Amino acid sequence: MWLNFWRRLSGNNNKSGERAPITHNCLKNVLTLAQIVGIFPVGNVRNSDPSKVEFRFKSWKILYAFLISFGFLFCGGFSFYKSMTVGILLNQLISPLFFIHAFITSLCFYNLAYKWPDFLTHWTKIEDHVLKNYKTTADLYKRIQYSGVAMVIVALLEHALSVCNYVYSSTCQNDAEGAEHIFKKQFHFIFTYMPYNFVSGLVLTFISWTATVVWNFGDIFIILISIIMTERFRQINLKMKITTEEICTRYNSADGKALWRQIREDYDNMNNIMRSLDQLLSNLVLLSYSCNLTFILIQLFNSLRQMGSIIEGIYFFYSFGFVISRIVFVSIFGAFINEESQAALPYLTSLPSEFYNEEIQRLITQIHVDSVALTGHNFFRVTKGLVLSVAAAIITYELVLIQFNQATLNKYMTANETICF
Amino acid sequence: MWLNFWRRLSGNNNKSGERAPITHNCLKNVLTLAQIVGIFPVGNVRNSDPSKVEFRFKSWKILYAFLISFGFLFCGGFSFYKSMTVGILLNQLISPLFFIHAFITSLCFYNLAYKWPDFLTHWTKIEDHVLKNYKTTADLYKRIQYSGVAMVIVALLEHALSVCNYVYSSTCQNDAEGAEHIFKKQFHFIFTYMPYNFVSGLVLTFISWTATVVWNFGDIFIILISIIMTERFRQINLKMKITTEEICTRYNSADGKALWRQIREDYDNMNNIMRSLDQLLSNLVLLSYSCNLTFILIQLFNSLRQMGSIIEGIYFFYSFGFVISRIVFVSIFGAFINEESQAALPYLTSLPSEFYNEEIQRLITQIHVDSVALTGHNFFRVTKGLVLSVAAAIITYELVLIQFNQATLNKYMTANETICF
Amino acid sequence: MWLNFWRRLSGNNNKSGERAPITHNCLKNVLTLAQIVGIFPVGNVRNSDPSKVEFRFKSWKILYAFLISFGFLFCGGFSFYKSMTVGILLNQLISPLFFIHAFITSLCFYNLAYKWPDFLTHWTKIEDHVLKNYKTTADLYKRIQYSGVAMVIVALLEHALSVCNYVYSSTCQNDAEGAEHIFKKQFHFIFTYMPYNFVSGLVLTFISWTATVVWNFGDIFIILISIIMTERFRQINLKMKITTEEICTRYNSADGKALWRQIREDYDNMNNIMRSLDQLLSNLVLLSYSCNLTFILIQLFNSLRQMGSIIEGIYFFYSFGFVISRIVFVSIFGAFINEESQAALPYLTSLPSEFYNEEIQRLITQIHVDSVALTGHNFFRVTKGLVLSVAAAIITYELVLIQFNQATLNKYMTANETICF
Amino acid sequence: MWLNFWRRLSGNNNKSGERAPITHNCLKNVLTLAQIVGIFPVGNVRNSDPSKVEFRFKSWKILYAFLISFGFLFCGGFSFYKSMTVGILLNQLISPLFFIHAFITSLCFYNLAYKWPDFLTHWTKIEDHVLKNYKTTADLYKRIQYSGVAMVIVALLEHALSVCNYVYSSTCQNDAEGAEHIFKKQFHFIFTYMPYNFVSGLVLTFISWTATVVWNFGDIFIILISIIMTERFRQINLKMKITTEEICTRYNSADGKALWRQIREDYDNMNNIMRSLDQLLSNLVLLSYSCNLTFILIQLFNSLRQMGSIIEGIYFFYSFGFVISRIVFVSIFGAFINEESQAALPYLTSLPSEFYNEEIQRLITQIHVDSVALTGHNFFRVTKGLVLSVAAAIITYELVLIQFNQATLNKYMTANETICF
Repeated sequence: MWLNFWRRLSGNNNKSGERAPITHNCLKNVLTLAQIVGIFPVGNVRNSDPSKVEFRFKSWKILYAFLISFGFLFCGGFSFYKSMTVGILLNQLISPLFFIHAFITSLCFYNLAYKWPDFLTHWTKIEDHVLKNYKTTADLYKRIQYSGVAMVIVALLEHALSVCNYVYSSTCQNDAEGAEHIFKKQFHFIFTYMPYNFVSGLVLTFISWTATVVWNFGDIFIILISIIMTERFRQINLKMKITTEEICTRYNSADGKALWRQIREDYDNMNNIMRSLDQLLSNLVLLSYSCNLTFILIQLFNSLRQMGSIIEGIYFFYSFGFVISRIVFVSIFGAFINEESQAALPYLTSLPSEFYNEEIQRLITQIHVDSVALTGHNFFRVTKGLVLSVAAAIITYELVLIQFNQATLNKYMTANETICF
Repeated sequence: MWLNFWRRLSGNNNKSGERAPITHNCLKNVLTLAQIVGIFPVGNVRNSDPSKVEFRFKSWKILYAFLISFGFLFCGGFSFYKSMTVGILLNQLISPLFFIHAFITSLCFYNLAYKWPDFLTHWTKIEDHVLKNYKTTADLYKRIQYSGVAMVIVALLEHALSVCNYVYSSTCQNDAEGAEHIFKKQFHFIFTYMPYNFVSGLVLTFISWTATVVWNFGDIFIILISIIMTERFRQINLKMKITTEEICTRYNSADGKALWRQIREDYDNMNNIMRSLDQLLSNLVLLSYSCNLTFILIQLFNSLRQMGSIIEGIYFFYSFGFVISRIVFVSIFGAFINEESQAALPYLTSLPSEFYNEEIQRLITQIHVDSVALTGHNFFRVTKGLVLSVAAAIITYELVLIQFNQATLNKYMTANETICF
Repeated sequence: MWLNFWRRLSGNNNKSGERAPITHNCLKNVLTLAQIVGIFPVGNVRNSDPSKVEFRFKSWKILYAFLISFGFLFCGGFSFYKSMTVGILLNQLISPLFFIHAFITSLCFYNLAYKWPDFLTHWTKIEDHVLKNYKTTADLYKRIQYSGVAMVIVALLEHALSVCNYVYSSTCQNDAEGAEHIFKKQFHFIFTYMPYNFVSGLVLTFISWTATVVWNFGDIFIILISIIMTERFRQINLKMKITTEEICTRYNSADGKALWRQIREDYDNMNNIMRSLDQLLSNLVLLSYSCNLTFILIQLFNSLRQMGSIIEGIYFFYSFGFVISRIVFVSIFGAFINEESQAALPYLTSLPSEFYNEEIQRLITQIHVDSVALTGHNFFRVTKGLVLSVAAAIITYELVLIQFNQATLNKYMTANETICF
Repeated sequence: MWLNFWRRLSGNNNKSGERAPITHNCLKNVLTLAQIVGIFPVGNVRNSDPSKVEFRFKSWKILYAFLISFGFLFCGGFSFYKSMTVGILLNQLISPLFFIHAFITSLCFYNLAYKWPDFLTHWTKIEDHVLKNYKTTADLYKRIQYSGVAMVIVALLEHALSVCNYVYSSTCQNDAEGAEHIFKKQFHFIFTYMPYNFVSGLVLTFISWTATVVWNFGDIFIILISIIMTERFRQINLKMKITTEEICTRYNSADGKALWRQIREDYDNMNNIMRSLDQLLSNLVLLSYSCNLTFILIQLFNSLRQMGSIIEGIYFFYSFGFVISRIVFVSIFGAFINEESQAALPYLTSLPSEFYNEEIQRLITQIHVDSVALTGHNFFRVTKGLVLSVAAAIITYELVLIQFNQATLNKYMTANETICF
């Protein structure tokens, strides 16, 4: 109730679209986009009250989401079958992997959507408390919107280039023209086995653009959530810093212990919520890293191939840089959570001994012993150092990929045949 | 005495085969299977009283076990000799490695059986205490039986496929038919040097099926024991969680310290028993990882070979997936112990300061400083991250294997000769 | 004021060029050299009062620095363009990388210069306190001067050899003589596209020598700063050691707690200042490692090439050893900070229990939990172990470089053509 | 004085060659052997009083040591020159590396001998205290003698095989017979450039056998010292274990604190002495690992070569196994120190809370925070895990070695020429 009241209150003060920068509000637009492309099927996502968000099995959203998912699986299956019949060349696996990854991402988001309302209710309670008691350090609402929009645009641009590349670079043996020509080229893996049809071409185009957004949405979601959690930890750290400085200058220890206890408990709440969030996101994180790694490995291998045309070159380097950026950005933004959650340590160790009490000692112990991070089911922790480990892993795996695909490589080297894809 | 009494009591209450889910009862059936295939020769393994389990040097079980072990060594020696005479091609090493590994596994289990009664007596005491005072979180008895049966079946299926592959894929120059044909093909490494004999064929078949179970039993045993230990830690963690929540809601600190002291001492007992268990299993763990790594490396190398027939292909991929699953499952289930033994940390750091006492502080210190895990003689710790390290190691070693076997590789590439094995 | 007074006082006592060995005085000459080559454009760098150091946007130094930076960019751009037109052979990338790296280094130093005055003021306050209360362990002033001069000379020698190599080893198709001959060879990437001109030749020579110093100045600066910080930690550690020994022998605990409190606070100040310094230097550290790694990788690859002449061989090995030394020295000197900041632990744990108090406990906690090091934006920590990691990384990346440049390698192997560079 | 007295006393009690198993006595024979082969030139090494051990610059031992060292350098120089003139093939580098490594080892031992007396005096004081107050767990004196003798014999066997290999496998163009034949073959790198002479042949033989012992003595010394230090830590741990058990059974806390304080201080002394020892041995450790790594890499590369004769094959595998054993044994025995120094943690965490006091808390902190190990100048820590890291490093470096020596490899493959070495 109080929550509602405060929301309305703040709604009165700043009518011009500004809201309390709680997670629900920040992610509102992004999640709406997600629902348009058929993932994250929770109800009332645009409702201003986070406790109204709900997941119902019997809803149109679920049905729509299932249809889209099936579309991904359908395209993925056919394109995988086509690439098998041609004989697996590593560069032909890009298309099937793209659709299958989009399909698995959508499955992960069903799972996430199912658990989201509970998590959100719990988290909003803590977040409200943090927002009331700790100064904000950035305009989170704007930052989330801008980051989200920027990432989606870059992703769509990648797909647009990919379509251009299909249309201009590949030479299929069909004499169709206009839309048919484009559709037949782009969805050759479908229309080899099914008769051409304008409507199904449109549907496939819709699915492929949808798949592009979904394929990227896992990474986008991880990054946006990381930005929010980092900001929350930063708010707590800021308070610790200010408190420490005030204590050092004014030497005023009145109610010091109660204050630190409050801070410690809020920090502890944040830690606990991060642990729930980590469990929620673990599937997505694992999927994101494995998918990005696979794409980088295949694209790096394909870089050994002669580029046919300029547009193929442009597409290749844009797409390659795009996937590398994805893994780097996910790692860095994910790592910020871990970094920020430990950033308060220096303030605590610098406190004069007069104001050093059991609460601070417990806080130091907790920060040291029980540090949080996104983990991917504990197989790895997302820290800055992960970027270097991932780079080393890519290099090593690439070497084996090359050794095991000498045949493919020889094909690349000797002939520059028209592989109709 | 009390132990017996309680056993009988619980036996009365639920007659339909249900027993107290102590380790001895859970493993009873699995260990009986082990004794059928000639390993783990301890007496009274089916006795309901764990303290009656004993290891005697002069027993029929030991004699039987020695005979079987000798059979493994015999087969391993001959098949190694045969592969040496052909000239070592990496794919010919699978057979000798299989038998020699089964032989070493049986040696490890002698050692384990020798120390098992003492360990079991000590462990049952602690386990009974844990079972009485901490709620169970899963039906351990069923889980162990099902897991064990499933793993044995998958293993036997692998061997059946292997036999099929021998019979259908390899072309030996003998004109025998029926059983003789099959025996001569499957045990070519024996019958090249010894005259054929139907009885010895039967005995060899028995030994080879036995070897299959033994070859897998190290991994199965590690996984089942890990499941049990994980459950015990989980029980303690559950109590900590409940206690923490009760304290937070009721603010009832009566006998808080005594309660936490009890929990700490039980956790400490579990830690100590895990350390003994780790020493007991270290040989098996080292053997399991080195064996699985060797098989994966050789099979990965063999994947560069052209498959002769469909059944060879099916067998190859099943067998390869099987060995990979083994190393992954051992790592993950082993890692659960480590994970679960540290999972209580957040509950302890979240305790309100009123109820924070020396016992909790000691518990936090212990969890942080003295965490347990399966280790393999301290050369490595079995944690989730190990899976990634193992993957990286496989890749790197494979590269060198390829460099050092260019000659073998060329043979694979150029000719597809009938290597009679 | 007090600072000034003490400076003047010490200036009176030892007129013969000796000054208080604060960072500002130690680096005075080195920074003057930096300003001659157009980086680190802060004002009053030779003023004896560190608080007078300032950064002004509108100054001749900035203008001069901008001109030099532009020169680097100009040369880098042209030489990159030239190497693109020839077709990228890895050995042709040395020249563009050299200029571009010098350019980026100069950018980093703008940023550093901008933040330097604030940092210096803050740091000098702490440093003065440390110098007054803790014995020095080495003549820092001399050590800095000698190290700096030695490193600059070794760097210039490398460039001189490079010029010789250009003049004697490469065979360009121009019939010019004397200075024109030399200039045209050395700056072939400019004079291929622009008419020759003696003055522009001189300017380019000036820029290329300047670039040499700048290219090395990042590493030199990191090493010198590391020497200073290590000395400061060593001073504090020395005091801890002496205090511990005095306590153990005299058993005189009078004002023990106050003394340890003072030491802890000074150590804490050093830790905090190191953290600021790490943020200041992070760009430089990242740049230094990435640049050195790139050069080592390319040079290691080029070592597969047949050397044309003896002077080419000498230059190659000198230059290769030079870059390896750079990365090793930066790692080792950087690691000394981390090592020295933790070196006091044994003294603290050895203290008799009578003199063990909360201050010492806090100090142990801080040293263990909150250890400082140069980090490169937290992607890696500069410790001794980093040397081995870097070596392993070089090896792994080199393998991929070789795999991806088989074409270049074949050119190296088959023909020894005159690539006019 | 007291030390002397106790020595004489114990000398009286057990006349039959048994002595107090202090380090000085244990190493007496080994160090005498070292002095025979011209390293470790300290005086009074066989004196029963460790405080009489001394290092004097003007002594016959030093002179003798210098002559031997010069011999190593002489042989190393010539054999390196010879291998350069032939064109460096990796297998020709074994001989020069062998002599040069022996030379550097002897340099390290000068340094060690110089610091040995001081260290020994300090260490004997602590050791005597430990021996008096803590039960021994093994007959250290015998173990050291046996281990030392065994390692020296295995090393000499390796050299004997190497000589056989030279004599039987290589075909030099000289028609000498008997001793001359053998000398000319074995020291071809000398007699190619100098006239043959029977006396110089004898001297060279003496130097080469001496070099064999020296080449291994670094590793032997590290292993023996590790055995001693591990035993000392084990003694302290045993006392902790017994004390803990006594406390738990008798619940007798009388003078508990004083007892634990004594244990903590002894443990702390051991830690400090280990740190000094680590600094003393760091050069040797670094040298040992780098040398063994180099030999393994070269031998692994040479394994790609066709073996000429059976004796060449036997020598090759014995020698290869020998170097691998060296690095593994050094790592494992070195790691035991680290393992044993942390093995007491479980006893301390298991103590009932009544007997838990500040001393125990400090001991836990120290074991956790300040653990000792041999380190090699902090570049790496000698732990069990190091074995796996070294294996991975060997594999990776080998890959690059192969890439960079394709030419050598081709020579190996194509021709089996008589390279007269």
